[in-house]
Amino acid sequence: MAAEIVNPHSDSNTGEEAPGEPFDPAFALHRGGKMAVQATVPVRNKDDLSLAYTPGVAKVCSAIAERPELVNDYTWKSNVVAVVTDGTAVLGLGDIGPEASLPVMEGKAILFKQFGGVDAVPIALATTDADEIVETVVRLAPSFGGVNLEDISAPRCFEIERKLQERLDIPVFHDDQHGTAIVTLAALRNAAKLTGRTLGELRAVISGAGAAGVAIAKFLLEAGLGDVAVADRKGIVSRDRDDLTDVKRELAEITNKAGISGTLESALAGADVFIGVSGGTVAEEAVASMAPNAFVFAMANPNPEVHPDIAHKYAAVVATGRSDFPNQINNVLAFPGIFAGALQVRATRITEGMKIAAATALADVVGDELAADKVIPSPFDERVAPAVTAAVAAAARAEGVARA
Amino acid sequence: MAAEIVNPHSDSNTGEEAPGEPFDPAFALHRGGKMAVQATVPVRNKDDLSLAYTPGVAKVCSAIAERPELVNDYTWKSNVVAVVTDGTAVLGLGDIGPEASLPVMEGKAILFKQFGGVDAVPIALATTDADEIVETVVRLAPSFGGVNLEDISAPRCFEIERKLQERLDIPVFHDDQHGTAIVTLAALRNAAKLTGRTLGELRAVISGAGAAGVAIAKFLLEAGLGDVAVADRKGIVSRDRDDLTDVKRELAEITNKAGISGTLESALAGADVFIGVSGGTVAEEAVASMAPNAFVFAMANPNPEVHPDIAHKYAAVVATGRSDFPNQINNVLAFPGIFAGALQVRATRITEGMKIAAATALADVVGDELAADKVIPSPFDERVAPAVTAAVAAAARAEGVARA
Repeated sequence: MAAEIVNPHSDSNTGEEAPGEPFDPAFALHRGGKMAVQATVPVRNKDDLSLAYTPGVAKVCSAIAERPELVNDYTWKSNVVAVVTDGTAVLGLGDIGPEASLPVMEGKAILFKQFGGVDAVPIALATTDADEIVETVVRLAPSFGGVNLEDISAPRCFEIERKLQERLDIPVFHDDQHGTAIVTLAALRNAAKLTGRTLGELRAVISGAGAAGVAIAKFLLEAGLGDVAVADRKGIVSRDRDDLTDVKRELAEITNKAGISGTLESALAGADVFIGVSGGTVAEEAVASMAPNAFVFAMANPNPEVHPDIAHKYAAVVATGRSDFPNQINNVLAFPGIFAGALQVRATRITEGMKIAAATALADVVGDELAADKVIPSPFDERVAPAVTAAVAAAARAEGVARA
Repeated sequence: MAAEIVNPHSDSNTGEEAPGEPFDPAFALHRGGKMAVQATVPVRNKDDLSLAYTPGVAKVCSAIAERPELVNDYTWKSNVVAVVTDGTAVLGLGDIGPEASLPVMEGKAILFKQFGGVDAVPIALATTDADEIVETVVRLAPSFGGVNLEDISAPRCFEIERKLQERLDIPVFHDDQHGTAIVTLAALRNAAKLTGRTLGELRAVISGAGAAGVAIAKFLLEAGLGDVAVADRKGIVSRDRDDLTDVKRELAEITNKAGISGTLESALAGADVFIGVSGGTVAEEAVASMAPNAFVFAMANPNPEVHPDIAHKYAAVVATGRSDFPNQINNVLAFPGIFAGALQVRATRITEGMKIAAATALADVVGDELAADKVIPSPFDERVAPAVTAAVAAAARAEGVARA
């Protein structure tokens, strides 16, 4: 986080706009892109070149050919993550294609670097076919220490992630699912602590059955939540529905122990937790019908499902996805440390235990500062990434997936 | 070239060796890899994040979705090259696989940066199937401004390059072929000038019919050389041979106007130029049989086909691939400026005219310093990359392949 920022594009970062672009500081900042490659060894003269390139490099290549695991010692592989998308579910913009998704992937890459010290390369693919994406990433894998899947639409994202995890021996992590779930659990853990409850006492309702909603539901249940119900556009996902996709049918099996059905808003009556990852608006009456000391995590961006001013009238803890309100549920609290920890020990994958460890470490960073408006640390809290990194690395060792 | 070198791996660059590795400065230098990613914009606080990432980034994504060409203005795409290999023809080591090739690809990437200011990402693929390589690179293309193919064995390299050039609208350049050919032509042009001859007067014999040999032969003929004959392990490639691959049959059609056959060494009798890109050794008698004022470019590494001490007994100009002799034919003289020039004008491809322009510009850098031991500039001559960049950009415009 203390790394110095160098801007080789400064000549072109004059704030000048492309013809036809309205003036906007975001465009000015993006001109020329947001990242670059740098050499970390000198290449100033013949002697440098003879070590970093031919003939010296040949010895290193030969050593790796003989002992393949040395690739992690003598190349950047063990510190570089591919940030892979097909551009089908970019922010709230939807399927805008690979080129238009690149600014987000670059943004992600620089967050990896700034917060986790992890190198990352944006890879926006010119295919939306799940099998082609899997094949392509498998072929890229020798060059990378991990794969962060990003902004790939559901339900393809589930299949792509599962197949890649089966075929690769490096971490594959769909951040829209697991990053969001980890940060949500951390906030929930602290909210429960603050209000003197255990996770097992809580009943949550999640609005949204896409990548984030499905992952949050599964993860909260694994973490020990009492009950979780998930609503899609047609209402609560329940076994009595006959319009469910495979993913939602599986969800109906493991969630909604109470067996409720009907609308999201009716399900909120007496619920302890609302988690919004869908957009849309929840009526104030529904929020008012929640249990006392409720938590409202309205994470849609830029418009939370429940405005914090409304939520605060009824809830003990309010969180959003926005940086201009307290308790921002921001994935940047998780993914840099998760990959940094996994890469540090050369983990073969990111296990459930590693994710739980990340959420716990993230929650614990708050410590004595715990308050209704501080159930989660700020993204700029410098303690976060080291804490998550250490916890994830330790969990990887404990779970037997570490190679170093 | 004046970019500052930052080494984030300095903690681990202690010169300590992996257990079992003999001490060697090349291993010490390679520990942790040779490159990193850096942010070129600040991400220090909430305001930075809201411009470089959400919500600010969404406007940039939307603008690109509407006008796809803006991806070149607002991401690093227009300055980043994929250095793609399958690890089948790495240096003199042969088919050592993708992981073991990575140190070379990283080396190439940092040379791109240091000499041309071009960002480059090593992509070593886990497939050697030509069609799979083509498909994979086509899918990667939205994220890159160009593709540098590297260390892919012949004859697959020819097919892969051709198919990619047909399918992509960004430059695709197999450096082992064209980089070598361009630098060879530059040296040959100056050697001819030094000895008062035109290219049309010269007859060259090339030892090696792999990627480099084939490309050099074709390129020298395009540049106007009088005649070129190519030898593979079985002797001179000629129309009367019945053991030729498709590539060599095509070569037999366009080269060897003199219609010679037999051994490489017999073909050298009376030849003006020897170009070695094969390894092996050429007997001194054969070198002695060349025409007066001959040029010997013995480029095999680390052992030139003709030792410079022998070559100097008979030849007017001697060049090698080694940095410890004068006149080093080093691809780094060409590829950084070629891509920098092509990217600068967003060329859709690298034409023959752009390659000829690069060779001419490279030769012209030598200027008044032209001498038998200086027919080509030093790789560290800071005038080289700007000269090649400018020439390639101008040629792209002249040939109608520039988009900016």
